[in-house]
Amino acid sequence: MIPIGEMVARTGAWLKTDGPHADRILSTRVRLARNLAGTPFVGRAVDEDLLRVYRTVAAAALATEPFRGGAAQTMNELSLLDRQFLLERHLVSHDLTGDGVARGLVLAVDERASVLVNDEDHVRIQSLEAGFRLEESWARAQGVDAALEEALPFAWSGDLGYLTACPTNVGTGLRASVLLHLPALVLTQRMKQILVGVTQVGLTVRGYHGEGTEVMGNFLQLSNQVTLGQDEEEILTKLTRVVRQVLDWEEKAQDQLLRQARWQVEDKIMRAVGVLRSCRLLSSQEAIGLLSASRFGNTLGMRNMPEIAVLNELLIRCQPAHLQRAAGRDMSSEERNEYRARLVREILGVDDAPEPTR
Amino acid sequence: MIPIGEMVARTGAWLKTDGPHADRILSTRVRLARNLAGTPFVGRAVDEDLLRVYRTVAAAALATEPFRGGAAQTMNELSLLDRQFLLERHLVSHDLTGDGVARGLVLAVDERASVLVNDEDHVRIQSLEAGFRLEESWARAQGVDAALEEALPFAWSGDLGYLTACPTNVGTGLRASVLLHLPALVLTQRMKQILVGVTQVGLTVRGYHGEGTEVMGNFLQLSNQVTLGQDEEEILTKLTRVVRQVLDWEEKAQDQLLRQARWQVEDKIMRAVGVLRSCRLLSSQEAIGLLSASRFGNTLGMRNMPEIAVLNELLIRCQPAHLQRAAGRDMSSEERNEYRARLVREILGVDDAPEPTR
Repeated sequence: MIPIGEMVARTGAWLKTDGPHADRILSTRVRLARNLAGTPFVGRAVDEDLLRVYRTVAAAALATEPFRGGAAQTMNELSLLDRQFLLERHLVSHDLTGDGVARGLVLAVDERASVLVNDEDHVRIQSLEAGFRLEESWARAQGVDAALEEALPFAWSGDLGYLTACPTNVGTGLRASVLLHLPALVLTQRMKQILVGVTQVGLTVRGYHGEGTEVMGNFLQLSNQVTLGQDEEEILTKLTRVVRQVLDWEEKAQDQLLRQARWQVEDKIMRAVGVLRSCRLLSSQEAIGLLSASRFGNTLGMRNMPEIAVLNELLIRCQPAHLQRAAGRDMSSEERNEYRARLVREILGVDDAPEPTR
Repeated sequence: MIPIGEMVARTGAWLKTDGPHADRILSTRVRLARNLAGTPFVGRAVDEDLLRVYRTVAAAALATEPFRGGAAQTMNELSLLDRQFLLERHLVSHDLTGDGVARGLVLAVDERASVLVNDEDHVRIQSLEAGFRLEESWARAQGVDAALEEALPFAWSGDLGYLTACPTNVGTGLRASVLLHLPALVLTQRMKQILVGVTQVGLTVRGYHGEGTEVMGNFLQLSNQVTLGQDEEEILTKLTRVVRQVLDWEEKAQDQLLRQARWQVEDKIMRAVGVLRSCRLLSSQEAIGLLSASRFGNTLGMRNMPEIAVLNELLIRCQPAHLQRAAGRDMSSEERNEYRARLVREILGVDDAPEPTR
């Protein structure tokens, strides 16, 4: 079986696709939390339990259609760099990158479907799409869930639904999330208002890298808070409604921004693209800001903007572990900044012969 | 006779030339202070005196070869915008842009020779060149001086030489100055040291716009302090020697900078050019900084840098009065920032069709 890191580095085709509202919605994810009946939850299980869970789940998953040709590995089998690499791709959680017994990942060739094993729950089915594709993502997760359920006895209660380690996931075990790009709401300082409104209807807002991460590059992740007392369709319908509402607010904020400060906004965007195309050193943080501005230029229909699919790709590939994997070696922060700038110019197609002075 | 503002706006050919060491030496100037014998100095003269001085000097100058086809006007005949315009071109002093009786300028068609009338002294002969051309500049000033002296009785004392309003100009009345671009010395924080050394040998250092102005864009003006007790050749020889010394220090600082921080320097330069080529709003101050960085890129022999002559032109034409004269109207600071960014892109030859959203 091919190592997961290799597989991911080779493919990642979904990154380059763009779905509906691709300029404002980076990706859609559905996650289902499941646990094996008759086995203690991860937090209480002994090592043998966890190992058995990993072997059972990995074997069952790889035998299903969605994971045909895919790969499974425990985190211990992966280098720290590869764990970081998978984290940067939103394939594993931050917890999973640490050490632990029999924590693993089963991954489909195209990265769209995956199963985390022995993270917070025994099984976390994940489905990932570019753009706003909640139905497709949900359908794929359901397919994996149904296929796994034929082989694995999931812990389930008639009263509560699926049982999970954390009470917030009990019931459907479903968390659906959408990663939005909301530059106009951020620039017009409306985000606080949005956060309050969204929280009131039972949704949560998180930063680019999920729970506990800060807002970077105007990217915000919107997901359902509650998994109990609502069926899956209700959860997805509500999330869809709120996403559309937020997009509507973003459009209104954008109109206002353009009326009040079109020149400033266009200036900022043009400079961002200019810097991306010309810089020789680029930090990770600055890259995210510049890519966000370029994305906004795309939304505004400005000329000579990099395509959304290119910006998606850059957003992922500019991250530290991705750079080091591409370079095939560990790099200092300084070296990464140079490599990142070069990668950006290469992907943006900037003519870039070396300086004669070098 | 053509109005001076029109004439200057039309020509200014010297701007686009570049002389020896053009990357590190923007321009060379020679100025000779003279006063008419038998007429009170400007500070003590009554209006009729000043008017007579202006008429006499302007008529005499225009009758000489260097000013054939040239123009003469008093500042009162010029709009405030045109006075500012001439100041930005280093043709008149800051004092001369204010109101006052019979203060005027006689200007040669190519701007290389001019005579300020009733500034601090009755007559100030000026000669201006791009690059490092002290001998040519001195020869031209001498030529104008000799031609004027045939028609005008200059105040002169056998002991002191030429008499001037301010004691620091007595003697030769000569001030020779060179406008240097010294980014490496500024970046390696050596300027203080240089200033001390230069002052000790009787030279002074000033900012881009002469006396009392701040250092902008790493441009520094080096000129002789003393005009008494040395003949002209000594003054010019010493200035030349010190300029060569400073250039040598700059080169050494540059070598050190490249050894220690080549990537950072190249990054800064490439970003500067990228921003110049892409921005939609550009302040005067930022423009000077970006043009300075581009100039440094030129000195370092980096690829795809704008030519020195283009950078010289931009440095002048990006100034507020130049912009407003080009636009043919008064503009707010905001409007100028937009106009300036457009002008820069135009002069740099950036393909720049309007945004479809506008």
